[in-house]
Parts: sequence; C-alpha cells; structure tokens
Amino acid sequence: MKIVDIREKTGSLKSEMRNAFIDFSQMTVSLVAVVTDVVRDGRPVIGYGFCSNGRYAQAGILRERLIPRIRAADPKSLLDESGDNLDPFKVFAQMMRNEKPGGHGDRAVAAAALDMAVWDAVAKIADKPLWRLLSERFNGGKADDKVLVYPGGGYYYGGREIEGLKAEMQGYRDAGYRIVKMKIGGADLATDLRRMEAAIEVVGDGGLLAVDANGKFDRATAFAYGDAIAPLGLWWYEEACDPLDYALQAELCQRYPGPMATGENLFSRQDMDNLLRFGGLRRDKDWIMPDPALAYGCTEGIRIMQSAEALGWPRRRIVLHGGTQLALAMSAGLQMGGTETYPLVFQPYGGFADGVPVIDGYTTLPDAPGLGIELKQGLYAEMRALAG
Amino acid sequence: MKIVDIREKTGSLKSEMRNAFIDFSQMTVSLVAVVTDVVRDGRPVIGYGFCSNGRYAQAGILRERLIPRIRAADPKSLLDESGDNLDPFKVFAQMMRNEKPGGHGDRAVAAAALDMAVWDAVAKIADKPLWRLLSERFNGGKADDKVLVYPGGGYYYGGREIEGLKAEMQGYRDAGYRIVKMKIGGADLATDLRRMEAAIEVVGDGGLLAVDANGKFDRATAFAYGDAIAPLGLWWYEEACDPLDYALQAELCQRYPGPMATGENLFSRQDMDNLLRFGGLRRDKDWIMPDPALAYGCTEGIRIMQSAEALGWPRRRIVLHGGTQLALAMSAGLQMGGTETYPLVFQPYGGFADGVPVIDGYTTLPDAPGLGIELKQGLYAEMRALAG
Repeated sequence: MKIVDIREKTGSLKSEMRNAFIDFSQMTVSLVAVVTDVVRDGRPVIGYGFCSNGRYAQAGILRERLIPRIRAADPKSLLDESGDNLDPFKVFAQMMRNEKPGGHGDRAVAAAALDMAVWDAVAKIADKPLWRLLSERFNGGKADDKVLVYPGGGYYYGGREIEGLKAEMQGYRDAGYRIVKMKIGGADLATDLRRMEAAIEVVGDGGLLAVDANGKFDRATAFAYGDAIAPLGLWWYEEACDPLDYALQAELCQRYPGPMATGENLFSRQDMDNLLRFGGLRRDKDWIMPDPALAYGCTEGIRIMQSAEALGWPRRRIVLHGGTQLALAMSAGLQMGGTETYPLVFQPYGGFADGVPVIDGYTTLPDAPGLGIELKQGLYAEMRALAG
Repeated sequence: MKIVDIREKTGSLKSEMRNAFIDFSQMTVSLVAVVTDVVRDGRPVIGYGFCSNGRYAQAGILRERLIPRIRAADPKSLLDESGDNLDPFKVFAQMMRNEKPGGHGDRAVAAAALDMAVWDAVAKIADKPLWRLLSERFNGGKADDKVLVYPGGGYYYGGREIEGLKAEMQGYRDAGYRIVKMKIGGADLATDLRRMEAAIEVVGDGGLLAVDANGKFDRATAFAYGDAIAPLGLWWYEEACDPLDYALQAELCQRYPGPMATGENLFSRQDMDNLLRFGGLRRDKDWIMPDPALAYGCTEGIRIMQSAEALGWPRRRIVLHGGTQLALAMSAGLQMGGTETYPLVFQPYGGFADGVPVIDGYTTLPDAPGLGIELKQGLYAEMRALAG
C-alpha cells in the first residue's frame, strides 16, 4: 500500500473567547488529509487530522517541510513489517528528517496535524477504533470504557460576571459534567475570588472546580492567588506561571498545598521531561496535561507517556489538553486520566462523536474505525471538502 | 514617522555541508525589509533582517501572524518617546500579540528576522552603527573595538578525512583566525580522534580547537567522547547532547573537566534561564551561545543577556551563534565574548562587512549606520531586490 496524496488547508477556529493571555478572534487551525490507495467499502481510506487550539494553522511548515519529505520518501520505507499498513513511527521519522533538535513550537503543531491523520489512516486500515489499536499495541489490550472529561470554560462576562459564569457552569452540570474549569487572571484577585465562589455555589464543592491562569502570573501574583484560593480546596490550580518557568513552578508546589496542573504549552518529550525533573510537581497529587494535537501528535504523545512513566509518573496523572478525538482515544486506550473538552467553543474541531452523552463526568467511546471523525458531522464535512 | 511597508521573501541557504544531525542541501532563510517614511540622503530608510541558519525560512508565520499585526497597529503605538524613531520593544510587543507563552521554535526564527530589520532601521534613523546604539542604550557607552571570531567548520571529507580537514584548518589560520572549530559525531570516535589530532597539528594547541557534536550524542556516547577528548585540553566541547537535556548536560559538566558550550538551539530567555539553572554549567569556564538571529532577534537577545547576568553569568561568557552582522554588533556593543562565523558556507547571509580582515582571531567593526548590510555586497544585492 502507499500514500497517494497529502492535502492540507487552513480552517478558522475563531471564537469570542479570551483567556488571560490572548484572544481567539483570529485563531486558525490546520486540517490534513492523508489519502491512501487502500480501499474499504469501495472507497479509498483517508486519514484525517488537525491541530488543536491556541497555536494557529501551520500551512508553511506543512507545505514547505513536512509534507514534501513524506512525498519524497520511498513508499516502502513508510510501511510496517506486514507491508499492508503504514508504520506511523517511520512516517514520523521521515517528516522530521533534517530538522534540528530543540525549538519545539510551531513545528510540533504542524507535525501533530499530519501525525494525527497518519494514525487515523493506520487504524482505519487495521479496521479498528484508534483507542483499541493503541490499547493493543501499547497497553496490553487493556482500555477504559469511559473517559473523564471536563469542560474548559468559565469565561469572563463583562458587566455580568457572576450571573454569566453561574449560567455557564449550570449548563455544564445540566449537560452531565461533574468537574468544571474556569479562567482566572483576566480580572483582579477580588473579582476572581467572587467568581470562584459563585462557581462553587453551582457545582457544590471546591473539589469539583479547577482554575486556569493560562501562564499569565508573575511570581508575586501566582503566590497571591495561590494563598487566597488554597482554602477553597480546588480540584487544581493550572498554569499559574510561564509554562517554561520550572523554578517558579517548583516554588509554587512548595507553597500551594492543593493539586497543581500544567503542560499544555510544552510540545515535546524533552520539555515535558524537564517539567517533571525540575518543576517540583508531586506525583501523588499534581497533573500534567500535554496536548497530542499540538505536540507532534500521537507518536510523541506515546513517547511523552513512556518517558513520564520512566520518571515515576503514573499514566493516570496525565489529563490531555485539547479536547480532540485523538485525546479521547489516547486517554481510553492508554488508560490516562482523561481529557479537557470545550462545549462552547472551537467547533467543529473540538469535542467527540455527535450525540454521545456525558454522564456523571464521563463519556464513552466510538466503535468506528480510526479516530471517529466520520461520527462528528460538522468536522467530517470540513474534512470531506479537503479530501474524500 | 511610520512603517510604510514590510516585505519578506525566502532565500536559499543550501550548502553541501552536513553536521552530525542534518544536511543543509534544502536549507532556506527568510529575508525581511521594513520600509519607513524617513528619508536619508534622498532615499527612504529601509531596515533589513534575516534569520540565521539551520531552522528554515518562516514565510508562513511572517505573512500570517507577525507582519499583519504590525500593519494593523496604530503607527504611533510603535514609536519611542521622541516620536522620531521606532521603539523596537514596542514593535516586538505588537508582533507577538495573541501569541501564547512557551513553544519557542519556528516563531522565534520568524520574529528574529523581522526584529533584526527593525533594529537596523532604528539604528539607521539614529544615524549610528547598531553596535554603537546598543552600547549607548544598554552598556553605558562602552564597546569593544574588536570582536573575537572563530570559524564554525571542520567538516567531513569522505575518503580524505585527514588531508581535507587539515587543508580547511590551514585555510582558517592563513585567513587570520586563531581559534577554530570542527564537527564531531559524524564518524566513529576513533576516526574523530584522528581528525582532532590532525586539526591540533595545524593549530598547534588543543586549547585553540573547539569541537561540536550538534546535539547528537546519547548519554553513553557523550561520556565516551568526553572521556576520550579530555586529555586534549580543547577550547570547548559543544552541544554534546540534546539541547534541552539539562539533566544530562549537568552530568556532563560533572564529568568532563574542560569547558563545555551549548545554547544555539534554545530560542527564548525562558529556555536559556532553564539551561543556566539546571544544566550544571560552570560560570568560570563554560560558554553559552544563543543565536539572536534565530531567537526572537536583538530584543530577546538583550533580555537573554540581562537574565543571564541576573543569574550570575558575565556577558563575556556569551559567544553568539550565527555569524551574522547582528551577532557582531551585539557582541561589540554589549561586550559579549564574541561570535562564530562561517567562512565557507551560508553565503551571502553569514559573515561581516566585505574586506574587513580577521587579525589574530579578531575582527573590527563597521562605521556605517545600522547593521552594516550595505557593506556586504552580495547580501545587499539580495536585500535590494526585496526593497530598496
């Protein structure tokens, strides 16, 4: 078998949301289709992929570097031992030829979209849902039949902060979510505290509320917030400081008694290893949250997980950022801790198969081969317009 | 005053060279021109910039993100207090709007090319060489009148390793260089040792030879090379391991008695701070080598220097990678340790003003306003084709 075409386009991910760091009104995303010559049900197998939110489309890197390298490779060099399917690790090695080490940023995002499409194709050719393929290859056949999901939300509502936030949180509860998350750092501490108290009123317990500063705080602010929110007993305090400031993260872990979480803005195994080595995170209570749809895809996600395990971190402490079907499949098939999702924004890219409910904070898994993009109508329409 | 146009194009940086990690036959570079409405000698002042080698052109990020943000900004918001010149820090802040923290890779390269052009324009409008402008603004008016330069070279010569390398090294000595550098890791240790001995024969002393593994070695290989080369008393042992593997770098610094060097593949102040905090480097003997033409430009380069100083690192221990006129200007005006250069490759982008000799390992500075690109004919021709 072989890859006969690779297509990419830029989609709009714009939303009215604004976190503590950026606004998303100009946000874009790359979509990728890997067309193979394998035929199933009379149609060619096509793998679909896209990058996650927050880091923009990567047309330049895809068109100029990653895609041409796969096109130029001997098709046989991309196959697994059977010769009947792609080996995603070999495809990854080809797309990364002549790329220097270090500098894991936009390149990781571009590679993530392409790598996701490759894994979708591989699972479709194997005629299995991706979560089951991952389970068989990397988890001894064990898998979770439901996955913890929580909504990344809790936005600011200029002029009606409290009512707006409470309505949003009530909506999540009504939709079946148990744990919710809200933004902090977009207002002063006193306002944010009132917002947190209002959210806790809705969910009933501080332990069901996480807060996310999106990497904005300096040392003094991160400490001030940490000291003020410690009595609330929150589920976690996320990205208090710059994602690369491991020294400050370690200080925060010394000072803040509750769980902390970070990692969505680290895009490689090497960066994540550094966080685990130097960031002071506590493996009995803190959370790491790589985003496979930003950080070189499923391939690097597996390496991140394996390296974290080698450093003593159980898979259950990995809660994947991004809310993609890839994150869902990885969390289930590799038995990680769950994944964020975005019920109100980033459509049609975020979220899982249409019509699958969230029950008491968990969602279930698709049975279709591959990632399950065909089960999500709005996303599938975008992808079919690209190839299919 | 205001910016009236920003143009960019992709140039070829291809070369036959190959380091331990990648080959450069497909390497590209981004060129940027910032056209202003300021007139000097009857012509508009145009700032020119480009990114350094090894990380490819960044047309996508420049066109889709960085340049449109500057275009969309209120021109007044980009000016210094006088209103007669750009404030490069304000321009930088505009181009980085709505960019998330972390993920310092290709974005840093794109920003570097654009930021270099802005500083070139600022110095031209101020009618000063950039090195003098930097000296006055950030170094109390002090500057070096000559800068240590060393050739990044020492390539592999299939079939005639020893003669080829010796001829190359003799060429550098004849051209006035005192310290030279060579690649290692592209052959086995025994071959590399013979190559090092041959190079030392030419330069006369191990202390005048640096070696560069380009981040390729795993732990065992980095140790084996370190143990084997320690008796040679080399000038430094560079990028032995992955640039982000601070833990291994720290082990190497414990084990290898001579000077070590790294940093060209770290693209932000945050990453460089982590190296200095966790990489075990010794401030009395080791070297850090950021590349301002890859790492967000002169603006971030100043921040890297200031942050390194806050962590106890003297400026003289910073030897800039890239061999650009920006690196030369920064090293002189900020009194850093010097800069690499590439006499045999990366033309016309690498290297300094035409016809300025290297004498006993040092080169001198241009007197023209700005970076001095107009003094380098081949590069100026490329830039004029873009704007001018």
